[in-house]
Amino acid sequence: MQRRGLLLILSSPSGAGKSTLARRLMDWDPTIRFSVSATTRAPRPGEVDGQHYYFRDRAAFESMIAAGQMLEHAEVFGNFYGSPRGPVEDAMRDGRDTLFDIDWQGGQQIRNSALGRDVVSVFVLPPSIAELDRRLRGRAQDTEEVIAGRMAKSRDEISHWAEYDYVLVNDDIDKSFHQLQTILEAERMKRDRQPMLADFVRGLNREFENR
Amino acid sequence: MQRRGLLLILSSPSGAGKSTLARRLMDWDPTIRFSVSATTRAPRPGEVDGQHYYFRDRAAFESMIAAGQMLEHAEVFGNFYGSPRGPVEDAMRDGRDTLFDIDWQGGQQIRNSALGRDVVSVFVLPPSIAELDRRLRGRAQDTEEVIAGRMAKSRDEISHWAEYDYVLVNDDIDKSFHQLQTILEAERMKRDRQPMLADFVRGLNREFENR
Repeated sequence: MQRRGLLLILSSPSGAGKSTLARRLMDWDPTIRFSVSATTRAPRPGEVDGQHYYFRDRAAFESMIAAGQMLEHAEVFGNFYGSPRGPVEDAMRDGRDTLFDIDWQGGQQIRNSALGRDVVSVFVLPPSIAELDRRLRGRAQDTEEVIAGRMAKSRDEISHWAEYDYVLVNDDIDKSFHQLQTILEAERMKRDRQPMLADFVRGLNREFENR
Repeated sequence: MQRRGLLLILSSPSGAGKSTLARRLMDWDPTIRFSVSATTRAPRPGEVDGQHYYFRDRAAFESMIAAGQMLEHAEVFGNFYGSPRGPVEDAMRDGRDTLFDIDWQGGQQIRNSALGRDVVSVFVLPPSIAELDRRLRGRAQDTEEVIAGRMAKSRDEISHWAEYDYVLVNDDIDKSFHQLQTILEAERMKRDRQPMLADFVRGLNREFENR
């Protein structure tokens, strides 16, 4: 019997370094499965079904919700987005962890789902809003209006920091990555994630009996 | 404002390596405070009050219990043993962790005390009973009867493994020490142990306001 896989939820405002941390975590341990979202929006050029998203039509998505096959979902600007439950449960059974790059709404829904006790949630804060602003501007030529919209969304996201198990202030990506590794390694050692320990202790008791 | 210190409870059968792990942990981080027990038994030659034990007479010990000044206590062969609460609370306020080298009874009492939510508990299992037997014999010239008594106590202690947050199988002291470090480092990052984060987020919100 192997370790029970956990659900690692990573949330942060856009630009706080979450995607870099997620990528480094999966490079470090390729057994970690990234939760690919399902969506009803149309694929953009270059997007691959099952890799960037599971692209589903509205009827298919709604029947997945009705069948309880979505761990969490939300409707944004008329399109559904959600995290399918099946691949997560398969990974857990195989002793593999699943990484979720989702916002506070998704995090809340998963924490309150039947798999809530398997969740480890980490919120990544930027060192400052000035720095967040710099990072958001650095990566695209967007209008001030678009930037302002992102900042409003960031503020809303940050307001939910206190719902997470762990909170990192990402002022140094190497330090933050080490902290994330440490959290994952420790959480994997939790007793209730190691059902094989019960067998091990049964073995010790047999040894006591046979002395 | 600083981090809230935690209570690290380390339990194991005698001979599983717990004392070595405790010593290495305190060498690694000298800010960790070791919880010195109070006892009513007489000092043995070389034992120093406040270092090996707080030596108290029965009346003093009983009034400490009555005043709620003991986090946990037990009576063993007519003598009281217990963990004073005051130094633990002082350490917590200073952002320092306290290490408890206690058995399952003490662990249970502290987990069920007002400081229960500050507890991180780790149980150390031996790799086998044969190995435990070897370690117990290795360190003293005891009679078979004494060894048998220790083994019975070990079995009783091991039967409580499932009450702990984390369980380590100590088949390699370096590996186990690394695991213990990892657990402590991760637990220190828990959001509810970092009250200063609320101030930090207030600062971010002021930055949003002033943009």
